[in-house]
Amino acid sequence: MTTDYRNTEKLVKILGVENSEYLLSLIRTIPDFPKEGILFRDIIPLLADAKGLSLLLDALEGALPVDPSEFDCIAGLEARGFTVGPALAARLGKGFIAVRKAGKLPPETVSEEYELEYGTAVLEIERGVIKNNTRVLIIDDLIATGGSAKAAANIIEKCSGTVAGFEFVMELEGLNGTQALGEYPTSSLITLPA
Amino acid sequence: MTTDYRNTEKLVKILGVENSEYLLSLIRTIPDFPKEGILFRDIIPLLADAKGLSLLLDALEGALPVDPSEFDCIAGLEARGFTVGPALAARLGKGFIAVRKAGKLPPETVSEEYELEYGTAVLEIERGVIKNNTRVLIIDDLIATGGSAKAAANIIEKCSGTVAGFEFVMELEGLNGTQALGEYPTSSLITLPA
Repeated sequence: MTTDYRNTEKLVKILGVENSEYLLSLIRTIPDFPKEGILFRDIIPLLADAKGLSLLLDALEGALPVDPSEFDCIAGLEARGFTVGPALAARLGKGFIAVRKAGKLPPETVSEEYELEYGTAVLEIERGVIKNNTRVLIIDDLIATGGSAKAAANIIEKCSGTVAGFEFVMELEGLNGTQALGEYPTSSLITLPA
Repeated sequence: MTTDYRNTEKLVKILGVENSEYLLSLIRTIPDFPKEGILFRDIIPLLADAKGLSLLLDALEGALPVDPSEFDCIAGLEARGFTVGPALAARLGKGFIAVRKAGKLPPETVSEEYELEYGTAVLEIERGVIKNNTRVLIIDDLIATGGSAKAAANIIEKCSGTVAGFEFVMELEGLNGTQALGEYPTSSLITLPA
């Protein structure tokens, strides 16, 4: 399997070897972006490829952490979670909840602050889009320390929704991101060195 | 038809009266956001509703400005164009091109500055995702003056791609947005007062 990908067994089981290699070949690694020492993993060339996008959605559907009957909608984190979330939601007959950065949503919102390496950031959901007991699958392209995903989960619970689980395209190794999420069902397609 | 929507004939022809009213009832209007005097049109409750999201994609597919055989991929503008673009692209078997705000994409990028009411902004596409003569449909939730959509078109042409047309969910009346785009085929689902 290409380059430095780990734990690709799940992906290969869903897509087969050839399609998995095709998909992974479209993820680009950029050293020192957005700052020195960070290996940036870029899914934009994967989304840009018609076959790649279709395989990615097949894989996300095949690797769901829970059965589709166990959630009502998919929440995606701005901005890369917006690209895969609605497409997967539409495939599964679900709605899509936009989890946005602070200041983008009209009032009223429900928000949660979380820690970054330096400083803090805030995520928000529009009040009213999550009803009592709405069951939400949270999706994003990548989990590192899990701070933003956990913040999204906290907002959903503040709105009296239920977190059904988390799904990620990529998981960074050694950062204990999924542990930080707690006991929720969690799935990622591949693991990569941080 | 609900509230202040104009030119809903196309939508009704595609979805029927009842489904059109259902879809439009899920678009929320917020006065004075993000600043005084602006009527903000919010598609987030529409995306959040499973039936609403499905109807929106049906409508966008039914109202394409050109036949799907006439484009290879769909470009969406950050961030709301990211929500509908990949979902529609996946339905049609196309790829998705992310048009991002300045500074978000890893190098190298192709960029274009455009004018805002006060000041300027920059949009970017990752170099390499558009090949020679790739035919691109540009999509966004809303066209006002058309500045950002025209900037996206200019970037695509700088990359030696071809703009196949533009599609919008909503068009604001009286701002000459579609005229600003030039001679490209253009379609919007509904018109609204600015």
